[in-house]
Amino acid sequence: MLLARVVGTVVSTRKEPKIEGIKFLLLEKIDPKTVKGTGDYVVAMDGVGANFGEIVFYAAGSSSRMTAVTQNRPSDATITAIVDAIDVEGTYVYHKDRD
Amino acid sequence: MLLARVVGTVVSTRKEPKIEGIKFLLLEKIDPKTVKGTGDYVVAMDGVGANFGEIVFYAAGSSSRMTAVTQNRPSDATITAIVDAIDVEGTYVYHKDRD
Amino acid sequence: MLLARVVGTVVSTRKEPKIEGIKFLLLEKIDPKTVKGTGDYVVAMDGVGANFGEIVFYAAGSSSRMTAVTQNRPSDATITAIVDAIDVEGTYVYHKDRD
Amino acid sequence: MLLARVVGTVVSTRKEPKIEGIKFLLLEKIDPKTVKGTGDYVVAMDGVGANFGEIVFYAAGSSSRMTAVTQNRPSDATITAIVDAIDVEGTYVYHKDRD
Amino acid sequence: MLLARVVGTVVSTRKEPKIEGIKFLLLEKIDPKTVKGTGDYVVAMDGVGANFGEIVFYAAGSSSRMTAVTQNRPSDATITAIVDAIDVEGTYVYHKDRD
Repeated sequence: MLLARVVGTVVSTRKEPKIEGIKFLLLEKIDPKTVKGTGDYVVAMDGVGANFGEIVFYAAGSSSRMTAVTQNRPSDATITAIVDAIDVEGTYVYHKDRD
Repeated sequence: MLLARVVGTVVSTRKEPKIEGIKFLLLEKIDPKTVKGTGDYVVAMDGVGANFGEIVFYAAGSSSRMTAVTQNRPSDATITAIVDAIDVEGTYVYHKDRD
Repeated sequence: MLLARVVGTVVSTRKEPKIEGIKFLLLEKIDPKTVKGTGDYVVAMDGVGANFGEIVFYAAGSSSRMTAVTQNRPSDATITAIVDAIDVEGTYVYHKDRD
Repeated sequence: MLLARVVGTVVSTRKEPKIEGIKFLLLEKIDPKTVKGTGDYVVAMDGVGANFGEIVFYAAGSSSRMTAVTQNRPSDATITAIVDAIDVEGTYVYHKDRD
Repeated sequence: MLLARVVGTVVSTRKEPKIEGIKFLLLEKIDPKTVKGTGDYVVAMDGVGANFGEIVFYAAGSSSRMTAVTQNRPSDATITAIVDAIDVEGTYVYHKDRD
């Protein structure tokens, strides 16, 4: 899974029927050590109710269909966790309640 | 899913029988923040009737076969949505009716 | 799918039994706008009878097994179409009968 | 599979129910020749009880679900081995009991 | 499939039970035109009995499980052929019996 921040949303009216009603969030991948955006973006389906600004991780590829929301649907990136804390080399580089 | 613009078409007569009758669109991936092309291209099958110039997103890998048009066919990239709007950090960087 | 040119062949005697009798072609990916090689290569199985020099596209990943030739075989790249024409922004950047 | 070092952990409370109880480790990929980190990170599920600092390899994509811990769960990266030794060109570049 | 050279081995005692008894080879990807290593490495399972120094190609992703040795096992890279010859633009850039 890759770490990313929710930076926006993508809206679509004309789309594959199987993805009707699913929220599409725009994610910017982050460097875990600095928790800064890398300038690399992906549109992910949301299975956990992530909000703008939150750090998440998402599953890519066929694994992104192994959630209740995305099963058998054409998702290649699904948010599967909202991150509370990232510990690198014994130091919290990110802690949701603190940052 | 990745955001891209429909920039062309690819025509083929001699091809795998399973993909007869499917439209192959040439997509240029875009940077969501600037909505500009990145110079990186992919040929995608079209499941939603996308037109030249439109911003879309597509599903890659096995997920690209989870649409009515591509089921059990050798597609590794299928357009699954025509994008109406992209919101980054609370600002519409793209809005179809405006841009 | 990615566009590429058939630039060579790969020969193997000792191989996984399931891929006996399949032709392995060496492809160089092309930039669709210039139709020039990018220096990035992939070995693909051939499901359509592609010849040296031809522009093709291939399916990668699990989709490369969705052809009559490669079903249930360990292919992660299979040529699924010989390209006749590529149209970018309304101009033929490649047309087989012309180029 | 790719070689990586366990450099940290990722904690999440709100997550896809199917991944409750699984440990998420932060891995930094390594260059096998130097055994140094490359600055490229991935969050992996742990199927073998890897500890901080250990060199491991992980399976990516659908193969990351072929373990007892991750079966049918949305993992796209699962640690499948703790590495004892890496031999490059006949020399041990890494040996767990020595380094 | 990608072309690579067998440059070493990886040894692991504590690992996912499903991959017990399988040989893990370290591969360095090669540029087909020069047959030189690119400095990019992958650990692959061996389904064909490849030896140190040999040029091989491997299947990645789910296709790496379509061999007798790796079926249903967490492999994302499996050697499926030992290469005898590579022909680029009509010239043998590599021939096992000659090089």
